Amino acid sequence: MEEVREIRRLRSIAEILEWDQETYMPKKGVRVRSELLALAAGIAHERLVCDKMRGFVEGASADAGDFVAETNIRETRRTFERAANVPTDLVKELARMSSIAKDDWVAARKESDFSMFEPSLLKLVELKKQMAEHIGYRAEPYDALLDEFEPGATGRQIEGLFAELRDRIVTLLNRVKASAKQPDLTILNRSYPVPAQKLVSRRMAEALHYDFDAGRCDVTVHPFCCTLGGPEDVRITTRYVEKCLTPSLFGTLHEVGHALYEQGLPSEHTFTPCGEAISLGIHESQSRLWENFVGRSKPFWSFHWSSVKDAFPEALGEVSVDEFYAAINAATPSMIRVEADELTYNLHIILRFEIERGLFDGSLHAKDLPAIWNERMQKMLGITPKNDVEGCLQDIHWSMGGFGYFPTYALGNLYAAQFFAQAGEDLPDLADQIARNDNQPVLDWLRRNIHRHGQRYRAGELVEQVTGKPLSIDPLMNYLTKKLTPIYDL
Amino acid sequence: MEEVREIRRLRSIAEILEWDQETYMPKKGVRVRSELLALAAGIAHERLVCDKMRGFVEGASADAGDFVAETNIRETRRTFERAANVPTDLVKELARMSSIAKDDWVAARKESDFSMFEPSLLKLVELKKQMAEHIGYRAEPYDALLDEFEPGATGRQIEGLFAELRDRIVTLLNRVKASAKQPDLTILNRSYPVPAQKLVSRRMAEALHYDFDAGRCDVTVHPFCCTLGGPEDVRITTRYVEKCLTPSLFGTLHEVGHALYEQGLPSEHTFTPCGEAISLGIHESQSRLWENFVGRSKPFWSFHWSSVKDAFPEALGEVSVDEFYAAINAATPSMIRVEADELTYNLHIILRFEIERGLFDGSLHAKDLPAIWNERMQKMLGITPKNDVEGCLQDIHWSMGGFGYFPTYALGNLYAAQFFAQAGEDLPDLADQIARNDNQPVLDWLRRNIHRHGQRYRAGELVEQVTGKPLSIDPLMNYLTKKLTPIYDL
Repeated sequence: MEEVREIRRLRSIAEILEWDQETYMPKKGVRVRSELLALAAGIAHERLVCDKMRGFVEGASADAGDFVAETNIRETRRTFERAANVPTDLVKELARMSSIAKDDWVAARKESDFSMFEPSLLKLVELKKQMAEHIGYRAEPYDALLDEFEPGATGRQIEGLFAELRDRIVTLLNRVKASAKQPDLTILNRSYPVPAQKLVSRRMAEALHYDFDAGRCDVTVHPFCCTLGGPEDVRITTRYVEKCLTPSLFGTLHEVGHALYEQGLPSEHTFTPCGEAISLGIHESQSRLWENFVGRSKPFWSFHWSSVKDAFPEALGEVSVDEFYAAINAATPSMIRVEADELTYNLHIILRFEIERGLFDGSLHAKDLPAIWNERMQKMLGITPKNDVEGCLQDIHWSMGGFGYFPTYALGNLYAAQFFAQAGEDLPDLADQIARNDNQPVLDWLRRNIHRHGQRYRAGELVEQVTGKPLSIDPLMNYLTKKLTPIYDL
Repeated sequence: MEEVREIRRLRSIAEILEWDQETYMPKKGVRVRSELLALAAGIAHERLVCDKMRGFVEGASADAGDFVAETNIRETRRTFERAANVPTDLVKELARMSSIAKDDWVAARKESDFSMFEPSLLKLVELKKQMAEHIGYRAEPYDALLDEFEPGATGRQIEGLFAELRDRIVTLLNRVKASAKQPDLTILNRSYPVPAQKLVSRRMAEALHYDFDAGRCDVTVHPFCCTLGGPEDVRITTRYVEKCLTPSLFGTLHEVGHALYEQGLPSEHTFTPCGEAISLGIHESQSRLWENFVGRSKPFWSFHWSSVKDAFPEALGEVSVDEFYAAINAATPSMIRVEADELTYNLHIILRFEIERGLFDGSLHAKDLPAIWNERMQKMLGITPKNDVEGCLQDIHWSMGGFGYFPTYALGNLYAAQFFAQAGEDLPDLADQIARNDNQPVLDWLRRNIHRHGQRYRAGELVEQVTGKPLSIDPLMNYLTKKLTPIYDL
């Protein structure tokens, strides 16, 4: 297990290099940084696929009931088997290209010109296709990539789930659009001075018990949460837009949700599977639970409203808590995924899932991406991006080689809804507690039911274990319908 | 050579981890960080002492006149031979302890209590003693440590040089103390608002052609310069003291001097000896040259005075450039090395050299450090620190295991004086150029004579090569005497 830990320490080192690249690295540093990332990835890979590890994976067995050993062996085996046939050169080349492509993506965004990013994207898709062949898959190459982020998930399964989800969302969205009662969204786009936004974000993060002694918050183009050294160094980033309160407010709550999961993992198991998150979908369930199920709820705002109003007297002086609540929960088609409301957000994900799957089954070519993006936005959401920054350049994921990542966001919403419904049953005073700014009980519930287990369960097992039922679309749709009905008089 | 580069890339990765620890790492991150640093150091060491590298070191030869190959082979051999007998576990343990001890040092400083740092210091001295035995030395264990930072230097040689230097400094200092004319130092301790200090520091760094696209400036307890990815990622830190202008002003110029050396190394040789600095002494010559020989000169202030005066109208409104010039060049015994004037600075170094050498020859024990420090400060400088922060806890070096490091500071002053005297002969318009804020000619001179060579020459060879003479104390003493004579009417 010490060797397993060393490999994960190498990944942690790579995380630090990446965090630095996103936050503070000077512009010209990218050339050497890509070399360093390639080196770290190469060493980690070589140590993972060596004979020593093969011997461990083939020979190890756990005593019955020793779930720590069971989990560590099962997950180490999985990681080993995924990596065993992948050449180190490909791993290094991918690490190098991801670092370079990220820079190209930033440059392309600056000019709002997808063609500046296209060569890097093409190269990344090509490398990831090779990767998928080496990893192996049953139905389609895309499955091999998806499985990295959501173990066991397949393109076909997600396709089925998303088809039902899309239909039910579009039905609800059409009722919302047809309503005569519409929240006033302009109140969110007034002037919100950045220093006050910083104070509010900080206060919210503290209210949710994010431990700043074991983390910090910086500013990046694309906010993220990143674990740089076990539960004791879990950092988040956010962004501040003077003309809009929500990116920093809900962006921070979102990343804090991720961070609370990481800070809640058992530190005695750091750098082993028992000390790590299950999947990106489960991770996203934690961020969305805090951002939306808690952070956009009535009880939450019954407590925080007065201090937020005081922080922005010019923008919110004449606004009532009900108007604010309606605005932050409005369901309206919009361009940017990270700013989308809870209902339409999932449509953004479905769009990305279809496009990236198409890039890998050959039905879609990189050069056509802006056109296809815009066409499907129009079809699904009824709006068309006016440029690439508003369209296919908005997300960082593909520039980091993160194909198969997006579906986990919608899965996260489904998991979150099902978990939160269960938390509501287990904690009869939940709403009152949140309204008193007492967020400890729900955090404890998450720690107890989810965080402390590390990777003991797969995502689907955990959902059944915690809620007694398999994953379903119902909890999310029930929650959204219940929330939107009074706002829109449905 | 690719393997040589990979080992240096690993060191660069460690530098990034250390930079992050100094600047932005959350408090609780230290436990895991020390594990990561140990891992990186261990891997670098194992790759350095492996059979492949031994084969290269024993078998490699350069064509006559191929100085690139010659340098790379010579310096790789030196690094290999120093490391070959050192056990990896000791390297890892030292990296781990250094990271922990740095934190203890910060904590001890907070309480101004040396005893909180003593256990870590003891442990580090013990580990470094073991290290010296494994490396090997001719006269004394301390030489093995000194040689890491200043190749070829020995304790005995430094002892002789420092004895003469101390005598001549003390003689000059006594004349300065006896003078009836004394600069008004209080003008430097007025209120200097930090935001204005930041702007001034930035402007100065830009005036010296520090490339911010290949670097950045952050704030740390102990300012430093750090290369995180070849000449394209060279970062500095500084500190701001509201009640004193000089720490940020000259601290920044100092670190910029280091950074200009690193940014001037040939990027085609990054991660090989031809792309690296010669020694810490030569490095220090670059920082001191810019900080003092340029940055405290009359021509420099004839240009910068008006803008600095404008930046601090309350503190400097009634001050003349001559008063300011006299104050920043005053020679006065003081407690803190990094704030010491050019003359007494060297006495601070001699004190540290004697103490650390004593820790390694057994004539001095860690527990007696505060008492001995204070006693020798009194003897040499005539003043006694009132607590440990003002005394033996002021420097970070020992907490990082940097024994044998301090002497390179005084060597740097000597090198700088000799180089700057030569630059003055080679560039007849030097003073006028500096007075016009045209710092490019002197930078070009340094690039041409020093930076571009990487490690082609050893420090002593370079001095002879550039100035035509062996290293001497005369240029520094001539320069100081010439500068202090009018200020003190000597």
